[in-house]
Amino acid sequence: MNPTSELLQTTRDARGVVTLTLNDPARFNALGADMLAALQQALDNVARDEGARVVVLAANGRAFCAGHNLKEMAQHPELAYYQQLFAQCSRMMLSIHKLPVPVIARVHGMATAAGCQLVAQCDLAVASEDASFATSGIHYGLFCATPSVPLVRNVPAKRAMEMLLTGDFIDARTALEQGLVNRVVPAEALDAEVEKLVQSILGKPRVAVAMGKAVVYQHRELGLDAAYQLAGQTMAANMMDADAQEGARAFAEKRQPAWKA
Amino acid sequence: MNPTSELLQTTRDARGVVTLTLNDPARFNALGADMLAALQQALDNVARDEGARVVVLAANGRAFCAGHNLKEMAQHPELAYYQQLFAQCSRMMLSIHKLPVPVIARVHGMATAAGCQLVAQCDLAVASEDASFATSGIHYGLFCATPSVPLVRNVPAKRAMEMLLTGDFIDARTALEQGLVNRVVPAEALDAEVEKLVQSILGKPRVAVAMGKAVVYQHRELGLDAAYQLAGQTMAANMMDADAQEGARAFAEKRQPAWKA
Amino acid sequence: MNPTSELLQTTRDARGVVTLTLNDPARFNALGADMLAALQQALDNVARDEGARVVVLAANGRAFCAGHNLKEMAQHPELAYYQQLFAQCSRMMLSIHKLPVPVIARVHGMATAAGCQLVAQCDLAVASEDASFATSGIHYGLFCATPSVPLVRNVPAKRAMEMLLTGDFIDARTALEQGLVNRVVPAEALDAEVEKLVQSILGKPRVAVAMGKAVVYQHRELGLDAAYQLAGQTMAANMMDADAQEGARAFAEKRQPAWKA
Repeated sequence: MNPTSELLQTTRDARGVVTLTLNDPARFNALGADMLAALQQALDNVARDEGARVVVLAANGRAFCAGHNLKEMAQHPELAYYQQLFAQCSRMMLSIHKLPVPVIARVHGMATAAGCQLVAQCDLAVASEDASFATSGIHYGLFCATPSVPLVRNVPAKRAMEMLLTGDFIDARTALEQGLVNRVVPAEALDAEVEKLVQSILGKPRVAVAMGKAVVYQHRELGLDAAYQLAGQTMAANMMDADAQEGARAFAEKRQPAWKA
Repeated sequence: MNPTSELLQTTRDARGVVTLTLNDPARFNALGADMLAALQQALDNVARDEGARVVVLAANGRAFCAGHNLKEMAQHPELAYYQQLFAQCSRMMLSIHKLPVPVIARVHGMATAAGCQLVAQCDLAVASEDASFATSGIHYGLFCATPSVPLVRNVPAKRAMEMLLTGDFIDARTALEQGLVNRVVPAEALDAEVEKLVQSILGKPRVAVAMGKAVVYQHRELGLDAAYQLAGQTMAANMMDADAQEGARAFAEKRQPAWKA
Repeated sequence: MNPTSELLQTTRDARGVVTLTLNDPARFNALGADMLAALQQALDNVARDEGARVVVLAANGRAFCAGHNLKEMAQHPELAYYQQLFAQCSRMMLSIHKLPVPVIARVHGMATAAGCQLVAQCDLAVASEDASFATSGIHYGLFCATPSVPLVRNVPAKRAMEMLLTGDFIDARTALEQGLVNRVVPAEALDAEVEKLVQSILGKPRVAVAMGKAVVYQHRELGLDAAYQLAGQTMAANMMDADAQEGARAFAEKRQPAWKA
C-alpha cells in the first residue's frame, strides 16, 4: 500500500521524532473506528520505541479533524456500538496522555468535537492563524462529553461551558488566550514553530522528560501534600539518573552537559 | 400581590425561558433569608418544569446583588442562625449547579460577596460594561468563604486570592479576562447579548444539554481515567436519544435536524 | 553576626509585617540546605507569632532565587540525600501554604526552578518589569517536578507544560497574563506596590484572614458539595468572631468598623 493512501501516515526520523499525519481529507480526517485503530496502533508503537523522543500530530487536507464520523454512527443505532466506539476513542486519548514522550498537536483548519479534543489532550499545541475550534456535537444533539474531559482541564470553566453549550467556533487567537493552544503563527510558519518545540525537547534527556510528563498529570489529581510527596520522590529518583548527574556537574563546571546517547 | 412588588419576579415564556429577576432594589437585592427562599422555590419549580429550557438570572435597580444582608445578620449573633443561613444559601447555589437547564447571569452594576458568588455559580454570565465584582466580606471581618467556592473554580488561583484578601472591586473587562464572565457589552446591548446565548441553547435538544451540563461538573471532580469512563458512558447514552439519532441522520443527509417537540 | 551577613534577613515591624529577604546574592539566593533551614525556621517563627499579619518574601542581589543549589547536589550522588533535600524543600513550601497569614512574593530579576516555585507557592506575588521566570531544571536533566506542583495550580495546563518541557524563560508580562503573579510594576515602584497589598491585608481582621486562607486551599481539593459544606461552616464560625460582629454592626450603622487590637 502506498503510504500516502493510508488513513494515518507515520514517519519517524533518526532523531526519534515521530510524525503522525491524519490522512483522510475527503472525510475531514474524521475519527471513524478505522482511524482510531490506526492511531492506537501508532501510539502503541511509539510507547514501545525507546528511541522515540516526541510525537507531532498533524493532518492533511483543509481540516485538522472533524471528530467522530456521525455518518457512520447514524448507521449503528445500538448502545453497545456507541459504548465500544467511545471506549475506543477514550483509550486512544488516554494513550496520548500516558505516552512517555510529549505529543505536540500541529493544528491548521477546523478542529471540531473529538478533533478539538485531540488538540486539548495533547501536551502542547501549535496552531496556524486559520485554525478554528469547536465542540460542535451539540448542534447534532450530541453533547461533546468526552471532548469536555480535556477541554475543562485546559480552558477556564465558563469558556469551556460556552463552547460546549453553543457549539460555536473560536478562532486561533481566542484559543491561545484561553489556553487551548500554546502558540499561534501564520500558516507558512507552522512547521518552523513546531520544530522549535521539537528541538527544545530533543535537547533534554528522555528519562527526565518521561518522568516529568507522568508526574505532572499524576500530582495534578492529588491534594497538595500528596502531590509534593510524589513530586519529591520523583525528583530524587530523577537525580539518580546518569544524565541528571552529568547535568548537575556540567552546571557546576559551567559547560554544556553531554547526555548519554 | 402585584408581581412587581415581589422580592423575586419570575417570568416564563412559551419557549421555556425562565427569567428570575431579583427585585429588592432598596436593599441592593441582598440575599436575605426571604430572598434565598424565593430563589430556592423558583429553582425548584424550574427543576420540575420539563418544558423549561434555560434560566436567566437578572436584577432590578442599580446593583445586581449585594450578597448577604449584613444588617439582618447583625441582629442574630447566634452560631445556629449563621449555620442555617449559609446552609440555605449554599443549597440554593447548588440548585443552580444541579439544575438540568443552563443558568445565565445577566449582570449589571455591583455584584458583591454572595452576589459575586451568584455570577460565579451560574453556568454562563454576560455583564454590562458598568458591572463590577468584589468578594467584599473581608472589609467587614467576614471572609467570603462560600463565594470562594465557585470563584476559585472559575478564576486563576492568585487572582481569586487577591479578590478575597483585599475585597477590592474588579471591573467588567477584568472579570472577562479572568474568566468570571463570558461576555461584556454596553448596557444597552445586555439583553440582546443574553438573548443570543438563550437562542443558541434553545436550538439544542433539552436532553443533550441536561446530560452535558451534569457530566461536565461530575467528571471535573474525577481523575482522568474515571472522567473518560463517565463521559464515554454518557455520550453513548446520549446517542440513544431520538434527537441525537435524528441529528446524526440530518448530518449524514446534509439537512437541518428536526428535534422532537 | 551582622544581620546583613546572614543568609536570610528577617525584619518584623510594629504592624506585624514580617519581611524575609534571601541574602546570598553570590549564589543567586540558591535554596541550599542551609537556606532552606533558615526559611523553615523563619516561617515556623511566624506561625507562632500571634501578632504577625503578613509575610513579604524578598531577595537581595540581581536575582530573586535560582532554585536548588545544583553545585551542592552534584557533590552528593545519593538517593537518600536527594530524598531528604526535596522533602526539606517541600516541607518549607507547604509551610508557606499552611501559614495563617498571607505570604506575598516580591520578585525582581530571575526566579528559576525552585525559585519560580517559591513565587507560585506564595498566596500573592508582585513582580518588577525586569522579573523573569523559568522552570529550568530540565536544561540540566532534572525535570522541575516539585516546582510543577504549585505551577500547575496557578497557570493553565499547556502553559505550565511548555515551561516545564522547554525550561524557557517567560517575562513578567507573560507571568501576569498566565496567573503566576498578581501585578507587574516598574522596579522603582515594586516596594510601593507590595505595600499596597500589605496595607490592604493589615486593614482586615487577622482571624478572618487566617480562616479564609485555610478554607480556600482546603475546599479547592474537595468536590463541590463538600466544599460548600466546609465553607459554610467556616463562615458561620467566622461570624461568631467579635470582629465580624463588629463589622456587621458597623455596616448596619454605616460607620467604619473598629477591630479588636
